[in-house]
Amino acid sequence: MPRRSRAPTEHEWIRRLQTRLGPQPPAVRVGSGDDAAALRIGGTTLLVTTDALVAGVHYRPGWLSPRALGERAYRVNASDIAAMGGRPLAAVMALEVPRGIRAATLDGVVAGFVAAARRHRAGLIGGNLARGPALAITVTLLGLADGRVVTRAGARPGDHIVVTGELGAMGTAVRDRRRGRPTPLPRVPDRVAAGALLARVASAMIDVSDGLVQDLEHVARASGVAIRLAAARIPVAVACRRRLGARATAFALTAGEDYELVCAVPPRRLAALDRLAPRLGCRLSRIGVVGRGRPAVTVLDGDGRPLHLAGGGFDHLAAPPRRR
Amino acid sequence: MPRRSRAPTEHEWIRRLQTRLGPQPPAVRVGSGDDAAALRIGGTTLLVTTDALVAGVHYRPGWLSPRALGERAYRVNASDIAAMGGRPLAAVMALEVPRGIRAATLDGVVAGFVAAARRHRAGLIGGNLARGPALAITVTLLGLADGRVVTRAGARPGDHIVVTGELGAMGTAVRDRRRGRPTPLPRVPDRVAAGALLARVASAMIDVSDGLVQDLEHVARASGVAIRLAAARIPVAVACRRRLGARATAFALTAGEDYELVCAVPPRRLAALDRLAPRLGCRLSRIGVVGRGRPAVTVLDGDGRPLHLAGGGFDHLAAPPRRR
Repeated sequence: MPRRSRAPTEHEWIRRLQTRLGPQPPAVRVGSGDDAAALRIGGTTLLVTTDALVAGVHYRPGWLSPRALGERAYRVNASDIAAMGGRPLAAVMALEVPRGIRAATLDGVVAGFVAAARRHRAGLIGGNLARGPALAITVTLLGLADGRVVTRAGARPGDHIVVTGELGAMGTAVRDRRRGRPTPLPRVPDRVAAGALLARVASAMIDVSDGLVQDLEHVARASGVAIRLAAARIPVAVACRRRLGARATAFALTAGEDYELVCAVPPRRLAALDRLAPRLGCRLSRIGVVGRGRPAVTVLDGDGRPLHLAGGGFDHLAAPPRRR
Repeated sequence: MPRRSRAPTEHEWIRRLQTRLGPQPPAVRVGSGDDAAALRIGGTTLLVTTDALVAGVHYRPGWLSPRALGERAYRVNASDIAAMGGRPLAAVMALEVPRGIRAATLDGVVAGFVAAARRHRAGLIGGNLARGPALAITVTLLGLADGRVVTRAGARPGDHIVVTGELGAMGTAVRDRRRGRPTPLPRVPDRVAAGALLARVASAMIDVSDGLVQDLEHVARASGVAIRLAAARIPVAVACRRRLGARATAFALTAGEDYELVCAVPPRRLAALDRLAPRLGCRLSRIGVVGRGRPAVTVLDGDGRPLHLAGGGFDHLAAPPRRR
């Protein structure tokens, strides 16, 4: 079921480029292809991730206040650090600014970013400013992993799949916006504390940025396992259910931009997970299991039949921009 | 002598944003406002810098091959690490790619980057890929400082000013290109080894990215000193002299993009500098002295009269794009 014809998808591009990275520095513990890279430096594990928000691509002008944009730029990166079990330390921000931008806009972006970072005692330690055709905020966030670093590659048959929070709210808001309904865009949740707790029990973890199914496919591929999800167990956001009715679950599975954490947990650690759960600060749902087989993600309906999902998760390079 | 009317300049913007960075993490040793930030991590000094190359802003399509672009994206960042006396360790690259970009273009960018990084045993450990209106390559480069970290702030009256290599070649090539003459753009020099050696004797160091005078103004301001340069001692590139004749020195002082290192060296370390000089791998010129007085940079001609410089160095946000 090809979703596009000729142009490589974002992940095909990324995989292509990943084969061209050349020799990795000896300090590298986790390289490209996970939520963040991990470097061993002076007895400490440093995490590094980078993510960009580009006006007209990741959001449309007017959809987010400058402060909300700054918070979002921080949190989408913090989500990657959280998904490794780390805590944010310091960030640099490279801004491309179009001609005629207002001082208040950049001030707002920085203020929103700094306020969000401060919650983690992280800080903005530098940056770059260049003219560009559209406002683009590229953040590189460094983090520290005090405990184990959890990658996408550790899921084993028998593990359970759990996800934090709820899915589909952002996708629903974006869908509304594109149809002219001014639904506020939900904030990116702060799952840094949850990620550090989940890292104690998880065998694999990833954040839900491109859509639950697509992101779990990365886990399936990196771990060499098959993942089965129960549609009835997916924690679909109320707003998504209300707006999409019977199609809400399928929508929430592929909409993306939820920035929740999904992880695999070995059966022997389920008791520990239950003890941790009340401290996560958010809902936690068991949604599936890990099995043997060709790396893939299957979603089963109440009768055990595979659900057909229309969308395939967000892909930057496939179709014309279809989001925000 | 105001160079523009209302719009803040790049450096005014940067200074404005620097006042808004909020609390800095305790690990920070050097924060925003230097070539790179420095963090103390696990007994090691980590350097962090970020810089972007945006098509249509930093270069025009066709001026640089994809490989040359990738090398340049690496080296402009390595130059910042070199200017702190550090060595590059690992980088992440955030790409914004316009619709219809060819696979060979991105492959070339990555290949050029990786080849340049390999010379320093540094590696590309991750990245991000997003659609954007123009090709933009934002690199964050991490480095390690094994010895002293040299900032912009240590210059003292009596110090000498020295600069590596030659100035004005890139500015001349860009000027030619803008006039339709296809002069090849020179490569960004690799001054990483030179920077580590100079860090042993320098009281302050910066790389020449925006133009020698403008960059030394940062040193003057950060150090609270006045800097006097002798025009006759400026190492002007042959191509620049040939093309600009009598105006070559003034041009080379402000053209920028040279990515040479300029530093202040205390008199007591001049003998050590002379011993280091043959190992720098490039020319080294004594071009001026540090004095007391209002932080400023003055260039004196052969008769001791201040030179009037037309340009003021590169400013991203002031005028319409006038470079590559």
